[in-house]
Amino acid sequence: MSIGKTAWAIPEGFLPDFGPHPDDRKLRSHEAACILNANACDAHVTLTIFFGDREPAGPYRITVPARRTLHLRFDDLREPEAIPRNTDYASVFEADVPVVIQHTRLDARPGERALLSTLAFGAEA
Amino acid sequence: MSIGKTAWAIPEGFLPDFGPHPDDRKLRSHEAACILNANACDAHVTLTIFFGDREPAGPYRITVPARRTLHLRFDDLREPEAIPRNTDYASVFEADVPVVIQHTRLDARPGERALLSTLAFGAEA
Amino acid sequence: MSIGKTAWAIPEGFLPDFGPHPDDRKLRSHEAACILNANACDAHVTLTIFFGDREPAGPYRITVPARRTLHLRFDDLREPEAIPRNTDYASVFEADVPVVIQHTRLDARPGERALLSTLAFGAEA
Amino acid sequence: MSIGKTAWAIPEGFLPDFGPHPDDRKLRSHEAACILNANACDAHVTLTIFFGDREPAGPYRITVPARRTLHLRFDDLREPEAIPRNTDYASVFEADVPVVIQHTRLDARPGERALLSTLAFGAEA
Repeated sequence: MSIGKTAWAIPEGFLPDFGPHPDDRKLRSHEAACILNANACDAHVTLTIFFGDREPAGPYRITVPARRTLHLRFDDLREPEAIPRNTDYASVFEADVPVVIQHTRLDARPGERALLSTLAFGAEA
Repeated sequence: MSIGKTAWAIPEGFLPDFGPHPDDRKLRSHEAACILNANACDAHVTLTIFFGDREPAGPYRITVPARRTLHLRFDDLREPEAIPRNTDYASVFEADVPVVIQHTRLDARPGERALLSTLAFGAEA
Repeated sequence: MSIGKTAWAIPEGFLPDFGPHPDDRKLRSHEAACILNANACDAHVTLTIFFGDREPAGPYRITVPARRTLHLRFDDLREPEAIPRNTDYASVFEADVPVVIQHTRLDARPGERALLSTLAFGAEA
Repeated sequence: MSIGKTAWAIPEGFLPDFGPHPDDRKLRSHEAACILNANACDAHVTLTIFFGDREPAGPYRITVPARRTLHLRFDDLREPEAIPRNTDYASVFEADVPVVIQHTRLDARPGERALLSTLAFGAEA
């Protein structure tokens, strides 16, 4: 089964402060790009991060195994550099096979949780 | 009236802990795939669930009657297996007639509600 | 300027209980279909409401004036019938000129607000 | 790298009251259009604001530099006129190169935060 597109963009990106559960990976503020690879082969994905006031960061290289989903946490990215908190950014993904990408943020500031999510913008690379 | 696509993907999937209303079906944490079948005939839908670290589950078989909507709760799925809580997953739907699918989560952890929703990714099977 | 599609579907629909501000139109629970008509002529829109267990309701007839937006409240619909609260539904819009439709819900149950929003599914009628 | 469309619409628009942090730019109620320009050249964007009961406002003129993202705050717009709070509106963007646009609102009324976000509707101008 193959479903998706080979290029995806998420214009909204922002890592808020951790909030009241800084040591709880699931409850502290974070953003994720949920990537679905329904293909019978691995997907090799290249990620570029865009900012408001500097040159883009990347490429970040990610592999999503065949018939798997990867809920990629933006605050996990380290190589070639971490994404700073409280900074506007955007992201573009390019894959060698069709994938589907959805964007989610959990905002845990001041003690209450808020969630947002939307399908990313898909195109052919 | 016929509107929609025959294949849909939702990359984001996660069933949080129940929260403070475990016995209230409407207020405990859940996820739904809202399926609209505007056709004059029934829609037969096959659902496959993808995970991060194991082979996919399914197929789950769902019928949406003609000119009806079904707000499918992922935590209701039992056959061939239930979806575990606190586990990343993704879903792919294939239908024999065009349908439209929207994804919604109610997160009731720590006592406050948060909602997310987005249209799924539609394609031709 | 003309932008949009002539058919739109919103699979998710649910009017929660009013919540703690039943007399405040802006803060009580509600759903809206935000319709943009960027054309130089009026848009005549026909709305059909689908349910899980009964025949569809409608048609509802709505006019969005030229170069205007209408944030249609589903809880305002009366003719031919009101939509019941705490009931799953879905909606399909057909317009005589291209429009763009976005779905938003404010859920005010137990005292805390939660918002969801997504672009509807657009197609050519 | 070029990804996106040259016309985008956001039917939902509403600037709620500031909420309990009127002096904190990040935590008071606001809406943003997150624009990604992945091109090697600047993007010149024209924005028109539509209302329910008056002629549209604009054009607003925005430049997004090459390989940058701009998270445009609607409450920052001043020229040719500010957008009033507590008023339904919608927006249309036209760009001279492909861009991607996502809509986000932070609603800070009564003291709790709620977020919504969705990809805008993209088309060719």
